[in-house]
Order: sequence, then C-alpha cells, then structure tokens
Amino acid sequence: MKDIAYIDLKQCILQDNEDIANEVRDLTKEKKFFLWNIMSSPGAGKTTFILDVISRLNGKYSIGVIEGDIESTIDAEKMHRLGVPTVQLRTGGDCHLDAAMIKKALENLPLEELDIVIVENIGNLVCPAEFDLGADLPSMLLSVPEGDDKAIKYPLMFSVCDALMVTKIDALGLFEFDFDALEKNTRKINDNLRIFPLSAKTGKGMEVFIEWLCKKINSKKETF
Amino acid sequence: MKDIAYIDLKQCILQDNEDIANEVRDLTKEKKFFLWNIMSSPGAGKTTFILDVISRLNGKYSIGVIEGDIESTIDAEKMHRLGVPTVQLRTGGDCHLDAAMIKKALENLPLEELDIVIVENIGNLVCPAEFDLGADLPSMLLSVPEGDDKAIKYPLMFSVCDALMVTKIDALGLFEFDFDALEKNTRKINDNLRIFPLSAKTGKGMEVFIEWLCKKINSKKETF
Repeated sequence: MKDIAYIDLKQCILQDNEDIANEVRDLTKEKKFFLWNIMSSPGAGKTTFILDVISRLNGKYSIGVIEGDIESTIDAEKMHRLGVPTVQLRTGGDCHLDAAMIKKALENLPLEELDIVIVENIGNLVCPAEFDLGADLPSMLLSVPEGDDKAIKYPLMFSVCDALMVTKIDALGLFEFDFDALEKNTRKINDNLRIFPLSAKTGKGMEVFIEWLCKKINSKKETF
Repeated sequence: MKDIAYIDLKQCILQDNEDIANEVRDLTKEKKFFLWNIMSSPGAGKTTFILDVISRLNGKYSIGVIEGDIESTIDAEKMHRLGVPTVQLRTGGDCHLDAAMIKKALENLPLEELDIVIVENIGNLVCPAEFDLGADLPSMLLSVPEGDDKAIKYPLMFSVCDALMVTKIDALGLFEFDFDALEKNTRKINDNLRIFPLSAKTGKGMEVFIEWLCKKINSKKETF
C-alpha cells in the first residue's frame, strides 16, 4: 500500500508565486522598468505618499501605477487624475496581491514608455509580506500613530523590505514614537533595512528619500 | 467515469469555523460570560483601549483577556500586569484568530469566575472579519489617523461588527476626519453599527461607550 501523500497547500501556493515572481523580474529587465512594491497597514498613508512621490518625480521619470484594493476604486481615480497610467486590481476579498496579479496588471500598462511601476499593495502588515512580487524595491510604510513596536509584532514584513518609510512625522508632537526603539527592533530582524522618517503632508524628509530612490532606480538603469 | 469532485477549501474552513463558533456560543451561555471580540488595523490602539476599559470596569465585573498576536507577548504582559487572567495566542504567521483558537484559549481561563472575556484579535482589517468567534459583541476600532474612507475599502469588517469605536479623537486637530462621510459609508453596509468617537488617552467619549457596553453585558446576564 502506498504512503499517504501529504500536500502542503501553502508551500505549493508560495512556490507557484515564486515562479511567477521570477517571470515578472525577467520582464522588468526585458522592458527596462523599475518595479516598486509599497506595503503598509490600512491608513498608514500609502496613497498620499505615492501621489507626492509622483509629483516630485514628474518630468524626470515616466511612471505607471498598479492599485491593489479589496473593494473600491477611489485610490486609482486619484492616480488617474494625475495623468498617470493606472491599473486597478480588485481582489474581491483577498488580503494581499500576488505575482500572478502583477503579471496580469503589467500586461495592461504601456511598459515600453515607463521607467517606474509603483504597486500600492493591500493595506495589511501580514499576508502581503509572504508574496514576492518580483519587485526591485520591496518597501513598507509605518505611520507614527501606529507606534514604534510593530517590528516586534509583524517581523516578517520588516524582514522582506529594503526600505521603511516612517510616515506622518508631523504628528510626533501628539504621539510618542521612539526611533531608537524602532531602529533596535528592526536591526534584529533586518540589518539592511533603510529607515526614512518623513511627512508627505509637510514634505519633511521627502527630499532625502527621493534622492536615495533615484539612486536605486539609476543603478538598475545602468544594468540595461 | 465519475465527475471531478470540486472541493472549495475556503468554504470548508469557514463552515468548520462556524460549527466551532457555535460551540463557543453555547459555552458562553453555560459558563455565563460575555465574549467580546475587538478587531482593527495594526496600531489603531486596541491595547490602550482595552487597558482603559479594564480599569473602568474594575470592581464591577471580573474580566479575562485573550491576546492574539502573530509574534511577541508584549501586549499580554501589559494585561497581566493589571492582574487580569490572560491567555496569549501566538499564531506564528496566521493573520487572524479563528473559533478553534478561542475554544482552546477559553480552556485556560477561570470561566466560572469571569463575567467578561475580551479578545484582542490580530491587527488586520481583512481576514479576522471572515472568522466568527462566537462573540456576543464583534467590534472594531478605527483610529482617526487612518482616515474616514475605510468602510469603502474594507466593507466586510464594517458589516460584521456591532460597534465601531473611532479612537484617537484627540488627534482630530491634526488629521482631517469627516464623521458624516464615515457615517454615510458605514450605513450603506451595516445599518445597525453603533459608532463611538473616543480617546482612551484623554478619556473623552469613554463614559458613553462604557455605559452602552454595560447595558449589553447586563442584558445578556438577564438571560442566564
């Protein structure tokens, strides 16, 4: 009698995702664009941040956006109003984007004309961290009102990102937020994570971040 | 030849969960306690809110806490310091609590002595909404800095809750938050949702909420 075959469904799903993420990575090289995945909790300020980044990079790079949402199209409409090519992904309940969704979305963007594609992931600090999208820059936002202890509570998210944008620093007078504690807790998990305190509302810290981002983008461009 | 058997795994999981949620519901009646499920985004202020509620109900009711976390035990330690019987559930990656976890946790609480068991769910506006825990009061926190548009983006969460605590109203000067828009958007989804603006930091709005909560608890007690 044969042994029972155990199928680890999650493992299968993640392996399939990894294969497609590699296809997406190949596509970014073939079509010569920089793919940037932005993750965070709901309400950490992804949309406001992205709108500000787009206005700052305007004229310098040609940008497209993939908007991930469970429901609604309000964020995609905001991007569209800036004249940016935008694809709306509605997951209809799913709590994360995966590589297959990104591959599909990319088919609907004018990749030949674009330097950067920004992905606004679903607002969730848990599951999006498990799904590699093939991005050149996996990154996350953490807003000051959320608190400085999130790396302890959601370590996987902090471990898969290359950049952490600490948003809403204009609220530092109202909320206690210990940057040293954040730094200490993130270093245990991910020694390469770059931390950028900033406020898309006041503009503070944005220039420093944009300078770093442009270097990342240009260093990929040099490989083409 | 037989037809292919299609198994909807998600449907199976949710049905199994519902069966166990019903067992939990029966247990709350048998052991005579009020089960309260608190959900929100990461950093919306669940722990601060629960600590304030416990101090306000102290002497009136006997309270136990189930702390849901992906990693870490820092919140459970805060509860424990108040002298409250506490069970830590660490999901080790899973993004929500389910009824089976609650059933297991309840076995580790002195239910005969307790009037209320508070569940602090995983910080996530998506998946926890799908899993009925058998609670008398499914509820959620939405913090002012997260914004007033969340009912449009995460409708399931708003549809399954009976109470919405809008936290951090002390930050209203710094963040735009349109209560009329929130009310309008939630009414489309859930006409029975009670909305409580409050701040656990300043105490504003807490008394109104506590009064309503005590009525809910007492009306269940009358059925025993």
